[in-house]
Parts: sequence; structure tokens; C-alpha cells
Amino acid sequence: MTALRITGIRVTPVAVQDPPLLNSVGVHEPFALRSIVEVDTDSGITGIGEAYGDAPTLERLTAVAPALTGLDVFDLNELNRRVTEALGCAVRPDALTPLIGSGSRAKAVAATAAAFEVPCLDAQGKAIGRPVVDLLGGRARDRVPYSAYLFHRWAKHPIDPGYPEDDWGEALGPEGIVEQARRMVARYGFTSLKLKGGVLPPDQETDAILALRDAFPGHPLRIDPNANWTVPTALKVAERLTGTLEYLEDPVGGIAGMSEVARSTDIPLATNMCVTSMEELPEAVERQAVKIVLSDHHFWGGLRATQHLAAVCGTFGLGLSMHSNTHLGISLAAMTHLAAAVPGLTYACDTHSPWQREEVVEPGVLEISGGAVTVPRGPGLGVSIDRDALGRLHEQYLRCEIRRRDDIAAMRVVDPDWTGGRPRW
Amino acid sequence: MTALRITGIRVTPVAVQDPPLLNSVGVHEPFALRSIVEVDTDSGITGIGEAYGDAPTLERLTAVAPALTGLDVFDLNELNRRVTEALGCAVRPDALTPLIGSGSRAKAVAATAAAFEVPCLDAQGKAIGRPVVDLLGGRARDRVPYSAYLFHRWAKHPIDPGYPEDDWGEALGPEGIVEQARRMVARYGFTSLKLKGGVLPPDQETDAILALRDAFPGHPLRIDPNANWTVPTALKVAERLTGTLEYLEDPVGGIAGMSEVARSTDIPLATNMCVTSMEELPEAVERQAVKIVLSDHHFWGGLRATQHLAAVCGTFGLGLSMHSNTHLGISLAAMTHLAAAVPGLTYACDTHSPWQREEVVEPGVLEISGGAVTVPRGPGLGVSIDRDALGRLHEQYLRCEIRRRDDIAAMRVVDPDWTGGRPRW
Repeated sequence: MTALRITGIRVTPVAVQDPPLLNSVGVHEPFALRSIVEVDTDSGITGIGEAYGDAPTLERLTAVAPALTGLDVFDLNELNRRVTEALGCAVRPDALTPLIGSGSRAKAVAATAAAFEVPCLDAQGKAIGRPVVDLLGGRARDRVPYSAYLFHRWAKHPIDPGYPEDDWGEALGPEGIVEQARRMVARYGFTSLKLKGGVLPPDQETDAILALRDAFPGHPLRIDPNANWTVPTALKVAERLTGTLEYLEDPVGGIAGMSEVARSTDIPLATNMCVTSMEELPEAVERQAVKIVLSDHHFWGGLRATQHLAAVCGTFGLGLSMHSNTHLGISLAAMTHLAAAVPGLTYACDTHSPWQREEVVEPGVLEISGGAVTVPRGPGLGVSIDRDALGRLHEQYLRCEIRRRDDIAAMRVVDPDWTGGRPRW
Repeated sequence: MTALRITGIRVTPVAVQDPPLLNSVGVHEPFALRSIVEVDTDSGITGIGEAYGDAPTLERLTAVAPALTGLDVFDLNELNRRVTEALGCAVRPDALTPLIGSGSRAKAVAATAAAFEVPCLDAQGKAIGRPVVDLLGGRARDRVPYSAYLFHRWAKHPIDPGYPEDDWGEALGPEGIVEQARRMVARYGFTSLKLKGGVLPPDQETDAILALRDAFPGHPLRIDPNANWTVPTALKVAERLTGTLEYLEDPVGGIAGMSEVARSTDIPLATNMCVTSMEELPEAVERQAVKIVLSDHHFWGGLRATQHLAAVCGTFGLGLSMHSNTHLGISLAAMTHLAAAVPGLTYACDTHSPWQREEVVEPGVLEISGGAVTVPRGPGLGVSIDRDALGRLHEQYLRCEIRRRDDIAAMRVVDPDWTGGRPRW
């Protein structure tokens, strides 16, 4: 095979209807932003990917894209070099969202490289007629389990976004959460149940977990208050939930605080906040801050870099799970190929998929059933873009005024004094 | 592409003439053993690899080979599962040689998987028309630098092995070593110079390094006494060589001893003895035993596993270099593809190549010039087996009585009281 060189890249921002899901810093806005990345090659093959769609990300993707012309899609080392060089010193270390920790230049480079690595791997797979999982070392599993991602939520957005509200209704306490879980489990067959916490007073959220335990005996349970608790609060919750939780996710902020909690509870702590780059791993290991790292190829540098993360975790006795932001089917496909290829990824992965009723990929390939997604069999990622849907979602992006995710501002519509400051409890 | 399934595997042991090179446990025997591994697939493509050739390795390779029938060569996770299962509990944790640390079950599994992973990658590359480096993420460099591997040595073997002695002559002190280096540098253009130590009293070996420094100003210098020194001896040598050595390799045995030396010298310590598996990394990191790990895909689990090692080293601020045992061209090709794909492998790699005058691959692809090997351009490893040579070297294996490397026994021919016990000084 001769080189498969990039001839052009299209980055299309899209906006996706998003329900009013609550978290520690506020509430989801009516639209979530994503970028659809299409990488054309001189062979006629186009690789696709999906990334964040906020303005800083778009700025980086469009700044880097021209520098990738002529790149052989197999040369991922060269991709990293070009991304690093093209971003240069001008890169602002924005946090992608306050829900996944602080920003850094290295993280900006990793997220940008990831946005192009996935389309390169998709193009590789299409060129050789192999699914992406085969480019990552083959299947450690053929079906990737996902968890039910339960949210406290309102029935509808405080300002009418101009689209019909969904039929999930309000969930603001144990009963609503259990009902939500029943519906998710019935529809998708999830086993692991994860509650986004940090929204209601910790006692109420603890009650919700205990109610889930009673309603779903034997199901692994997790809660993620996104660092909205103090250490004493976290320890109080941990005391009530020992023996009940599979893991406790980011109860407090920072490696120091997490270490303090870890020393006083037997519940394994997990994170996608205090460790979101390789640079943060040594201190976390030394201070025994976490037992489980929630990977996410979108900000860990891509699928191959996440395999490297898995190797580090395996070496230092850390477990591996997978984090999710609101996403569409291209990301779900990439997450599934990756998780299938990583033997040490033994926890069910997070996904927001059940909350999205709009999609950018052709239907039929990615179905969550029995709590899992079967690895797509087709070449590359195994999914293809629905051009009409892409057009619609891009139009929606142009119409909606959101250009950067801001859950705090969305909450201020209801509570003008809201700061999103943490820890709240 | 449909599956590329393994239909059969041939493991051919070969014996290669080896000069009387001296090390801490004794002397190289007249023949070094290697295995040539050929993996046939249902597409007609055959992948090739090279592994150790001692009896325990051969036993493992031939025990595992039948279990790999039907394996898709892209499914390296399945390869690892089958190797682990086929080796089962029966695997003896033999050390491959006392020069690369202690044995363990995990290391036996890693070495066995590596022996088959390389042929699988070679077959993958041949199937898609791409060099192996492209399957590993592409080139971080197109030319891989190697070091001159200098040995104290005798002019000929104490028992005539029935083949003509080489023309390198004896080297048993600084003058001989400098002369050897001059010839290697003139012939191959090496920049880094590595002296195998632990053979003569440490003062004499230190003198040799200082003589090399004077003869080759600016050339990076290393010495590797293979754990034949005590901590006080190592520190005395370190004192004389501070500012002269690029790194000091395994001056003493074990992580504890290495840590002790590391605390008292500024010379970076390197190892291919106290850390030769992922399991040994956490303690080495915690105790700051080494600054550089010498990788070797033959025992670190293969090319992809060595990339994982590179990720761990990068994360924890460790440098990466590459170890070599006596090897032929298939291994040199694999080492070169791997080193080309690992950005963090910034040191010149070790190779015994200049000491081998027999070869199993067709000539013309792998030339050391300017101190480096250019990554082969052809599909897969880019080298092919010279069938006549393979036949000859296998005949030589059948004729020679060596079945397991034993440098200690070889030394006893000259010194009946020799034990190879370490540390000697």
C-alpha cells in the first residue's frame, strides 16, 4: 500500500438537543456542542471522528487542520508532532469543562491530537478492510458493557428552547432516580448504575443510592458528585455506603483531598478530575489518591494513548473505567472499539447516549442491549455519517447561541445568585 | 480484508558462531542459540520472527505453537490469552540468562508471546503492504542509532570449536578496548560506545572508559558490569567517572542496591537486570533505583508491550534505551522498527550485530552506517529469510552440543574453580 495522505479536513460544529440534567456546577444547557471531523485522503477514503464542539476546541481544530495536509494517516507520531507544532505556544490551557479537572497545554495538545487520531484510524481501517479494534491489538471482548448514567433533572429547560420536552420527567430524589433507573435498565439492560451526584444534599443522594441498592440488588452502583463535597462530607457518605458502592467517583477535588478520603474508607475512589493527563499520574500513584482512573480518549490523547494509560494503570495496580461527556454515535463507536481492545478495562463504561435523541450516524450499528454495545464489524469505526442529520445538527448549531458549554450560566437563569462554587457541602 | 488466520508455525533452532566475549558470569560459548519462528497463514503470507534458542524457550515455543492455529494475526489480545493458557501452570520461571535478571512466570509468558507477536506483525504488514513501524504508530525517526558494544575478549575460544577465529584479536585492557572501538567506529560510524564490564578489576575498566573518553571526545560512554560490583565499589567507580558516563548500567544487583548507588551519584543509572518486567517497575519508581530502563522486546512481551513500557517510563520521568543479547537480522529488523516508533527512545540502542559473521536474512537491507540503521522500507519487517543460511545454521545447531546458554561452564574450561558468583568486586 502506498501512503494514504490527507488531502483535506472538514470540521463541522453541531448542536444536539440536551435535556436539563443537573450536576455539581449547574445544569446542562438546551444544546450540547460537538465537532464532526472528516479527514479526506488521496485514496478517496474519508476517516471520521467526533470531538468537543466548544469555541476553544473549534479554534484549535481549525488552526491545526491545514498543517495536516499531506500526512500519511498511518503516521500517528508525525500527527502528534504536527499538532504540537501547529498549536505552538499560543495554546491557551483552557479547561474543557470544570467537570474534568483543570486545563493545561499538554491536555490541549492531547485533546487536539485525539480529534484527528480517530479519523486517521478510521481511514486506516477502511483502507485495509479491518475494524479499528484490530488496529489496537484485537478484541479483549466483543461486547463492551456500559453503565446507566442516572441524573437528577428537571422535566424541562427553564427557558423554552423551542423543541418538545422529553418524556423522562423530573427526578429530584430517590424515587425519581429509581424510576429513571427502572426505565433505563428495562430499555437497555444496564447492569452498572451510576448516579451523577453533587446536586442535592449528600444525605438525599446517599438515600438515592440505598434505594437503588434495594431496587436493584447485586447491580454495581457508583456515585459521582464531581468534587462538590468536603472531605468530612465525603467520609460521612462513605460510611453510609461502604459495602454498597462499586466505586466513589471524585467525592472531593484535588489529589491531596482524594488521598485524605482514600486513607479513611475502603470504598475504591475513582477519578476523571484529579487525574486527566499522564503528568498527573505520578503524584496520584505516590499519594494513593485513587484506585480507578476513568479514561476518555477525547482528552487522554486518542485511542492509542488511552491504551498507554491502561498500561500505566495495569503496572501500578490501578483499575480502569471510562468517562463520558455528552456525545454522538461516532464517539460511541470509538469508545467501543477502544474498550474492546483494552483487557484491563474491566468496569462498565459511562455513556450519555440514552439522553440523546438526535444522532449523526446512520442507525442500526450501535445498539445498547443487554447493557452492552457489540463492537461494530465494518471497516474502520464501522459507522457512517447521516449527511441529512449532519446538516440539520449543523443548522441547529448556527441557530443556537451557545458557543461554549456553561452549566453555571444555565443555572443562573433560575438562580441568579448561583456561582457553581465547590465544594458546596 | 477477511481474517488472516494462522495455519501452522515452524520453530527452527539455529546456532550461530559467537566469539569469546567476556562478561561478569563468564565467557560466551562458541555458539549462540536462536529460534527462527515462521507463522504461516491461510492467505499464503508467512510472518517471521526471532527468539531465544535455549531449550526452555524452545520447549515453550513448541508447546504453545499448536494452540495458535486459527488465530487471526491481527488479534494480539487473543494471542496473549492463548499463550497464557497454553503455558498454564506448568511454566517454569527460568531466567533466560543470569544477565537479564531473575525469572518469573510473567516473564516466561511475555517472552513467549513476544516470539509470536513479531511474526504476526510481520504478517500484518505484508498483508497490507506496510512496514511494521506503521503498525506501531509510524516513524518518530527514520534512522535508529545503535551503540558500539565493546567487549573484553580473548583472541579465540579455549577449545577449538572447528571454525576459523575472527581477526579482532584479544582485548584485555584499555588499549585493546580503544583499538576495538576505533575499528567499530571506523567501520560502522557508531557514536555511543558501551563497554561490557564486570570482567577485569574495576579500576582497569574505569581506566578503559577514561581511555575511550580521551580517544573519542564527546562520544557518549556507558559501562555495564552486570551487577558484578558491590555498592562501595560502584561508588568508587562512579566517583572517577562522574561527568564522563552517559549512564552506568547495572553496577550492582537488585533494586535496593541500585537505589543505594543512585542516592550517592549524579551519574544516571540504567538497568536491564533489576527491572525486566512491568511487575518490577513500581518498586523501582518508588525507590528511585534507576533513571533509564533498557527495553528489549524479546522479554518485555513484544513490540506493542514495549511501547507500553515506553509510556510508563515517559510518565514517570524515566529514560528509555534498548538492550541486546546475541541476535540475528530478524531481531535487528524488529528492534529497528520498534525503536523508530517510540519517540521517547532517545538513547542509541545496543546490538551485538558487529560480532556476528553469520546471518539468517538476505543481505542488503540492514546496514549499520553512520552509527544507525535505516528503518526497512519493505512490507512487514522488510527482511526475508535466506533459506540456505537457515539450513546451514540449523545443521550447526544439530551438530553443536549447546542447548542452553551457560557462560559459567564455558569459563570453567579455563578456570575449573570459576563459579560466576556475583558481586566479584
